[in-house]
Amino acid sequence: MNEYMKIAKEMSIKGFKNNEGGPFGAIITDKEGNIIAEGNNRVLCDLDPTAHAEICTIREACKKLKTYDLSNYVLYTSCEPCPMCLSAIIWSNIKEVYYGCTKEDAGNIGFRDDIIYKYLKGENKDLINLKQLDREECIKAFEEYSKNNGTIY
Amino acid sequence: MNEYMKIAKEMSIKGFKNNEGGPFGAIITDKEGNIIAEGNNRVLCDLDPTAHAEICTIREACKKLKTYDLSNYVLYTSCEPCPMCLSAIIWSNIKEVYYGCTKEDAGNIGFRDDIIYKYLKGENKDLINLKQLDREECIKAFEEYSKNNGTIY
Repeated sequence: MNEYMKIAKEMSIKGFKNNEGGPFGAIITDKEGNIIAEGNNRVLCDLDPTAHAEICTIREACKKLKTYDLSNYVLYTSCEPCPMCLSAIIWSNIKEVYYGCTKEDAGNIGFRDDIIYKYLKGENKDLINLKQLDREECIKAFEEYSKNNGTIY
Repeated sequence: MNEYMKIAKEMSIKGFKNNEGGPFGAIITDKEGNIIAEGNNRVLCDLDPTAHAEICTIREACKKLKTYDLSNYVLYTSCEPCPMCLSAIIWSNIKEVYYGCTKEDAGNIGFRDDIIYKYLKGENKDLINLKQLDREECIKAFEEYSKNNGTIY
């Protein structure tokens, strides 16, 4: 078994055994294989629905490295990232990701990853009630931002 | 203009003027219209690529309410949520969401929301290198979790 995935798996077990959250673990290394950060799902103990293993590990790595750009790092996660985590991976510029279990495996133990993937593909549109409101006012902030050459990241 | 969207817009302006992050703001209320939490993009000041307005506001509301379940709350955001935030909204069980600008508007000022939406629909597959590894080992954690009737949330 890959040595980093082994740690991700161990984090996934540690997390649920300590009642911190679901059975999901992750680890970020640099390209040379040095470990930067480890994490696990902490939704229950942090009372934070965004505290998935990958998000916690990305946040921890960024804190350690003092950057929001993880272009040169590699993520190992014990399960295929949900759309929230996959998008977080893209926002953080991580390009290399290894995962163990699939989203179907996560579905089989009761997690909604697959439902969210389908929603983002245009299915289950009644999952949430999403409505547009006051665009003409909100866009003024974008115009002001652009005019002032806002930092794009 | 809707009074809550007005606050979301004000937060979006406050955020980029203070160099905290991009021009995005959000607010969560209960069904009676009481304000629970406000937030804005804090990627730059927190050095956290996951610190989008909606994520910050969800985390703040959960902290205040001491829960990871926001089923009975409403979110207003100055821009259409990116896939990370939209998934976070679903994980937090928020069912009612109002947004101002569109993802195309965000794209026009340089943000990658639309690229991530397309990736999740099956396009731009070379955006990241995503590979499966050691499923047969990782799934043992899922099996153990199931056997012990893990909390599903």
